[in-house]
Amino acid sequence: MTTPEPQPNGLEGVVAARTKIGHVFGEEGRLVYRGYDIRELAGKASFEEVCYLLWKGKLPNRTDLEDLSRALRDQRELPMAAITTLRALPKSANPMDVLRTVLSMVGAALPIEGQPTLDQSIALTARFPTIVASFERLRNGQEPVAPNPKLGYAANYLYMLTGKEPEERHVKSLDTYLVLLADHGMNASTFTIRVITSTESDLASAVVGAIGALKGPLHGGAPALVMDMLDEIGTADNIKPWVDNALNSGRKLMGFGHRVYRTTDPRAEILREMARQASTPEFFALAKGTEDYAIRELNRRKPERRLYTNVEFYSAGVLHSVGLPRDLYPATFAVSRISGWTAHALEQLQHNRLIRPQSEYIGTMGLKFVPIDQRP
Amino acid sequence: MTTPEPQPNGLEGVVAARTKIGHVFGEEGRLVYRGYDIRELAGKASFEEVCYLLWKGKLPNRTDLEDLSRALRDQRELPMAAITTLRALPKSANPMDVLRTVLSMVGAALPIEGQPTLDQSIALTARFPTIVASFERLRNGQEPVAPNPKLGYAANYLYMLTGKEPEERHVKSLDTYLVLLADHGMNASTFTIRVITSTESDLASAVVGAIGALKGPLHGGAPALVMDMLDEIGTADNIKPWVDNALNSGRKLMGFGHRVYRTTDPRAEILREMARQASTPEFFALAKGTEDYAIRELNRRKPERRLYTNVEFYSAGVLHSVGLPRDLYPATFAVSRISGWTAHALEQLQHNRLIRPQSEYIGTMGLKFVPIDQRP
Repeated sequence: MTTPEPQPNGLEGVVAARTKIGHVFGEEGRLVYRGYDIRELAGKASFEEVCYLLWKGKLPNRTDLEDLSRALRDQRELPMAAITTLRALPKSANPMDVLRTVLSMVGAALPIEGQPTLDQSIALTARFPTIVASFERLRNGQEPVAPNPKLGYAANYLYMLTGKEPEERHVKSLDTYLVLLADHGMNASTFTIRVITSTESDLASAVVGAIGALKGPLHGGAPALVMDMLDEIGTADNIKPWVDNALNSGRKLMGFGHRVYRTTDPRAEILREMARQASTPEFFALAKGTEDYAIRELNRRKPERRLYTNVEFYSAGVLHSVGLPRDLYPATFAVSRISGWTAHALEQLQHNRLIRPQSEYIGTMGLKFVPIDQRP
Repeated sequence: MTTPEPQPNGLEGVVAARTKIGHVFGEEGRLVYRGYDIRELAGKASFEEVCYLLWKGKLPNRTDLEDLSRALRDQRELPMAAITTLRALPKSANPMDVLRTVLSMVGAALPIEGQPTLDQSIALTARFPTIVASFERLRNGQEPVAPNPKLGYAANYLYMLTGKEPEERHVKSLDTYLVLLADHGMNASTFTIRVITSTESDLASAVVGAIGALKGPLHGGAPALVMDMLDEIGTADNIKPWVDNALNSGRKLMGFGHRVYRTTDPRAEILREMARQASTPEFFALAKGTEDYAIRELNRRKPERRLYTNVEFYSAGVLHSVGLPRDLYPATFAVSRISGWTAHALEQLQHNRLIRPQSEYIGTMGLKFVPIDQRP
């Protein structure tokens, strides 16, 4: 007799939470934050305004925004224990491991305890860019740059990376990127933060788990691989042979397809226009040419899959144009998504119930203990 | 018009995985690891044997066990970056925050990358006791004690805490406790490790998330509260007035009730017998008297709830008798559960699919962006 094999269960179609924060309408290609279509917000609202929107449920007025911006600015510095931890990390460490470890230390040192609060959400969000930028400096043999209180969230992140006041067009690109990535329904890292929060654990514990989930290549870990792929393709006249060869040999193309969308991801459309303006003409021709040919071929070969460009494809182009090193893309995704994660933690606690699904046991039963010397 | 409120969804009854590792039969009060009833294993198999069982699916023969024990022994030391992190932590830090932070650094420094493996499971499990014991020493102003290669997993943990060879009865108690807590179906931390693993993230990221979930008072964070409650009750003749008063005022009694069990947790029965032998007669009379009266009153007042003693109640007594400080109980739970967590990570990857449930959006729609100076 054979027992059945463990089967994958992605919980597709299972509703894990009712939320007022946002939603992905996959069939229509729409993303909504608190009632606003992402196209209403992109390029108009700043990341700080979107933080306020996600956390408080409405856009801030001038006073609200000044208060929140000040609170975020005032908490950018890391506690000494976190700086010691940053310096102890190997220079070769994965930036997501760095963010996970140093944020965990921030939680232990501040400390972050008890029921998650909005103040704690601000305290952790404010420190995300500092952790990533400080590590980028240290691994290059440079001292970290102290945060600049005159600059907003996006501009200060770029400033701490380079030590120079960033160009306005780079600030604008990064700020829009941060707005676009701030929330995205019940994705795996957001689900993780709700599961951990549901045990009544603290906010830092929940955020650290979410960072770990976002690191996975099936979630946030893929944008750098898009750049690697475009590098490999190299020139526009190599697109067709490269893509044909990849598809014929069963290799996965990076930046296409999504569990939820059945049409183009609206974020990809906005990022494409940003990449068109911000990149070199050569780079954009390569990216757009790859997108067009790959989509045509993917849908010709597997029309039932309805594969379209996802957010990762042009995220890579935009972050590249801003000057970010490739291996900081996932951590920069986290620098945005911390806003949505913490909004979900706060909402989960409003009507909390421990998230504890079941498993089906398909193993053997009724075995009797045998002393070790009688075992085969 | 009012919108509905977010509702709790604990995913009760939703099967999130089919597993061969183990199961909780809640109606019957049975816990099974790989086909063995926990009563078959407790007091007979060592924690190292149970690790082998959970990871490999069968009990080890003598050679298998020696190989695994050696591998666990050989990897107890922490990398230098983790020791620096330990020393940077505030002495007042929560031991679960310490375990989360230092384990995260171990993952960054070794490094732990790519698809989770059995070797990585051993590498992380071996270091759990070292992290907890080293912090206990440091916060008391003492130097950490180097691991003792002559001692097994449980004995070495006690040795590293105190610097003295532990008494055999304490080793036996702790070893049995570690066996009892090693796995427990699809609980919140095990579910967390499967969610994070399903993104194809690394094992350290998944374990760090699970530590955060276990920290929650609704999951692993409650045993210390049992001791606090018994301290408050103080003496046997105060049981009835104290429990009556607590129940009349709506206060929650610690150590009773469980999402899955509808009868006594089998682990509680085994731990009760261990506590009977290991504790002082006064302590056991207080604990048993509180259990008996609380169960009677809980089931008289709410017979439909079917509340019984859970694992936390006598875990507290047993860990107390072994000499562990109260605030190390949750971390000691983790020192056991890391075995089950990693077994589930390895199983999840055998037939992986990204775990990404849905959410239902109950917020507003169709809002138009208004410039900040025109907002109320």
